Amino acid sequence: MNPIRVTIWNEFVHERSHAEVRRIYPEGIHGTLASALRAYPELRLRIATLREPEHGLTKEVLEQTDVLTWWGHAAHDEVDDAVAARVQQRVLEGMGLIVLHSGHLSKPFRRLMGTSCHLCWREAGERERVWVINPGHPITRGIDRFIELENSECYGEPFGIPAPAEQVFISWFEGGEVFRSGNCWIRGSGRIFYFSPGHETYPIYHNPLIQRVIANAIHWAQPQGNRAEVPRHVPVEQAREKILARGLQLHGAGGVLG
Amino acid sequence: MNPIRVTIWNEFVHERSHAEVRRIYPEGIHGTLASALRAYPELRLRIATLREPEHGLTKEVLEQTDVLTWWGHAAHDEVDDAVAARVQQRVLEGMGLIVLHSGHLSKPFRRLMGTSCHLCWREAGERERVWVINPGHPITRGIDRFIELENSECYGEPFGIPAPAEQVFISWFEGGEVFRSGNCWIRGSGRIFYFSPGHETYPIYHNPLIQRVIANAIHWAQPQGNRAEVPRHVPVEQAREKILARGLQLHGAGGVLG
Amino acid sequence: MNPIRVTIWNEFVHERSHAEVRRIYPEGIHGTLASALRAYPELRLRIATLREPEHGLTKEVLEQTDVLTWWGHAAHDEVDDAVAARVQQRVLEGMGLIVLHSGHLSKPFRRLMGTSCHLCWREAGERERVWVINPGHPITRGIDRFIELENSECYGEPFGIPAPAEQVFISWFEGGEVFRSGNCWIRGSGRIFYFSPGHETYPIYHNPLIQRVIANAIHWAQPQGNRAEVPRHVPVEQAREKILARGLQLHGAGGVLG
Amino acid sequence: MNPIRVTIWNEFVHERSHAEVRRIYPEGIHGTLASALRAYPELRLRIATLREPEHGLTKEVLEQTDVLTWWGHAAHDEVDDAVAARVQQRVLEGMGLIVLHSGHLSKPFRRLMGTSCHLCWREAGERERVWVINPGHPITRGIDRFIELENSECYGEPFGIPAPAEQVFISWFEGGEVFRSGNCWIRGSGRIFYFSPGHETYPIYHNPLIQRVIANAIHWAQPQGNRAEVPRHVPVEQAREKILARGLQLHGAGGVLG
Repeated sequence: MNPIRVTIWNEFVHERSHAEVRRIYPEGIHGTLASALRAYPELRLRIATLREPEHGLTKEVLEQTDVLTWWGHAAHDEVDDAVAARVQQRVLEGMGLIVLHSGHLSKPFRRLMGTSCHLCWREAGERERVWVINPGHPITRGIDRFIELENSECYGEPFGIPAPAEQVFISWFEGGEVFRSGNCWIRGSGRIFYFSPGHETYPIYHNPLIQRVIANAIHWAQPQGNRAEVPRHVPVEQAREKILARGLQLHGAGGVLG
Repeated sequence: MNPIRVTIWNEFVHERSHAEVRRIYPEGIHGTLASALRAYPELRLRIATLREPEHGLTKEVLEQTDVLTWWGHAAHDEVDDAVAARVQQRVLEGMGLIVLHSGHLSKPFRRLMGTSCHLCWREAGERERVWVINPGHPITRGIDRFIELENSECYGEPFGIPAPAEQVFISWFEGGEVFRSGNCWIRGSGRIFYFSPGHETYPIYHNPLIQRVIANAIHWAQPQGNRAEVPRHVPVEQAREKILARGLQLHGAGGVLG
Repeated sequence: MNPIRVTIWNEFVHERSHAEVRRIYPEGIHGTLASALRAYPELRLRIATLREPEHGLTKEVLEQTDVLTWWGHAAHDEVDDAVAARVQQRVLEGMGLIVLHSGHLSKPFRRLMGTSCHLCWREAGERERVWVINPGHPITRGIDRFIELENSECYGEPFGIPAPAEQVFISWFEGGEVFRSGNCWIRGSGRIFYFSPGHETYPIYHNPLIQRVIANAIHWAQPQGNRAEVPRHVPVEQAREKILARGLQLHGAGGVLG
Repeated sequence: MNPIRVTIWNEFVHERSHAEVRRIYPEGIHGTLASALRAYPELRLRIATLREPEHGLTKEVLEQTDVLTWWGHAAHDEVDDAVAARVQQRVLEGMGLIVLHSGHLSKPFRRLMGTSCHLCWREAGERERVWVINPGHPITRGIDRFIELENSECYGEPFGIPAPAEQVFISWFEGGEVFRSGNCWIRGSGRIFYFSPGHETYPIYHNPLIQRVIANAIHWAQPQGNRAEVPRHVPVEQAREKILARGLQLHGAGGVLG
């Protein structure tokens, strides 16, 4: 099995500013995710966080990333537009993207979806059941019929996303809501998975089943095909002979569009 | 039948700078489209162009628009980002959007798609056959098996778009290319249709069948449902009684997210 | 507005064999649905039931039906295969189909889906919240954020259906399940809507909001486009002149395939 | 890499009845496909044909098949309904299915699609260009922008299929048609790929690029996830405590539905 180069991106703000979050994630959410993913020897892990230069997501880092995971919440606006555009571009070229929890309002995710990505929410420490609705999907490997979380933030519908290509999980909340909590899209050559559990004040990323879903998603999201270079202007010389034969009637100079 | 308020947006640059284009569209592409659409008494037509203040797309105009058609080519970059975002927002709220020809690289379309929207092209005045691949779709009403255009600019695959919700037309080009030339998407509450025929140096918008497709698309794209106002923070008071009974465990202040 | 010709099909078995069901639906489920739909003057209603010749769904009746609603449960196997195939064929030609509750295992629905259409279930009279997840969709007109049903049969995931083209409702159940309760598909030229609330031992079809959804769905599912007749063998004479010019190289006799 | 167990199914009628076909495929279409696939050591190949008992597709064979390829044309009606249903069922459980050329009218494919699967056709030995429209898709690995076939049977739109989950190829034909020639669907836990090139009177399966696409498709279609066994009746004991607490109001006996 080829190695999969994974970059775990974390905003890493709450863990420094809130004692409660630091208690749950003393090494940061990224640290907990990295520890869990070290169980998979085929993953080559790298960490990147908001306060690094270019948020740790230079052109070189992204070039060497097969799958990027993203957790952000308090500081979406601090992400540089150029970096967000660079992430979007790499996804279109084939990099996988796993967007976690409050990352639904992150710049890269919103740029790729084209929609509001808004949702409803309530923080009441209530029970969540993350239902597998697609038991043949590779992201559900090793998961039984549902994952139950005793204390979770409620995310509710309507969730302002384009219709997913594949629906993997839908969550039930004790307080009466439902939520499309595990959704797949393809954009360009890249695969995108959004997974909603993971509020910073609950130890959700310590849950082995949640960790398993994220590991599964990384495997699912790795680049699948060619990395295509497509010429955008097609010379007339490549066209069928009949066009060539009749003398072309060229009205334009040609060249690369846009 | 309720009136449908249509705003026809045109960049209106080529018609002023190129004699050949002016000869084909002396009133501008928008003028030709408006003339054609006047055959439908239920349509309330309005024109807007790039060089007007706010490109003619003020908040008030968009509020009063049910369907917006968009033609642009030479000056995509001159469209103000705030206006592009406003168009995107109105689509998410339910306004229909018909994107024509080179509008595939326009800011509103790219923002809504989230992808490159690139394509391949060749200008050789070749024959195009726009095939109906979905004969039950309302956008094909009155169209037989295909529309044949004697002289057309070739657009070719791969076209950098998300998979359409419905594929209506695929074009054949004499020189050997194919192109997904009529595609539907839904984003938020809005319907989007992209239709590729329409290069400015060919009289394509004078073709009655092309006009019919655009009129059909306007009818298809009109707002369909409620204009929803959804509260984004859901008070605990609305949740099931059990959560209330056990004392809430509130960790956050609540409020509107994002 | 053109009239929409609606045929309400009901198995009509439980109402005759179970006193409790008869008490709730003394005129049959079809009678209750018809009473509710009479509020819409543009609907031309017709009733058909299992025990009529050809189940009331002769070729002529289906020819004159724009939208068919289907409720069945105890006697799916008694539906004649030829009638099920006829319903399927009419949907492909453009007839709308609204499948209600236990109709998920009906022959026409399973033939159109191609999947098991199985689900999980529990009958415990529990509370159901039918959430609107797509507030701009026309099937949600007049419905607020959710419909609450005090006593409902629980249907649960996984639901063995192809990914819907549009997801309109997802249900929450008191006992801990979720279910994709309102789903749209397009097959051929026909629109299909599945709506799960409606167990025969609860008065769910007397609920005005449930009635509203069904009326909305009928309007949504009406035929949209041309009724296409497509020749399946394409004579060489219609092909481009180059093929004709070089003498055809015909290897087959032609004729209609399949 | 785990071995992938592939069963190559061929009707094997034309090769025996038509000298021309036998000349091109002296070992049968299945023999040519098997020879090509032997280049992939991870594939465990098996052959099955129509005239064997149960068409070579016993319950045991299908249990041991990860991906089934299907070529049929003259004798679709001779395929036993029970075998067609068994193939459908195995796809829903996770077996991949690659349907080739005239297999579009085969019983298993039509059962899985739920639509007519009809298309238009013309046999004139014309040129076909199979365009890659999705260059990041794994089925396109090793394929440049298109595959050109000098002599091919024309298949044309409209093709009576449900909208594909992913569109991989669209073909251009010299005579003026287009066709969705490479299409992916997911049904249940199984992946389905339809690939149109392959008329029996042209040596198309000897083309290394066509062989590469089929090999890619087999890899793509292999089972991805768990093989799920889902209980269809959910006992009340598994439900939330509140339902249990209030005394259940059970109206039914429970048991497995359908």
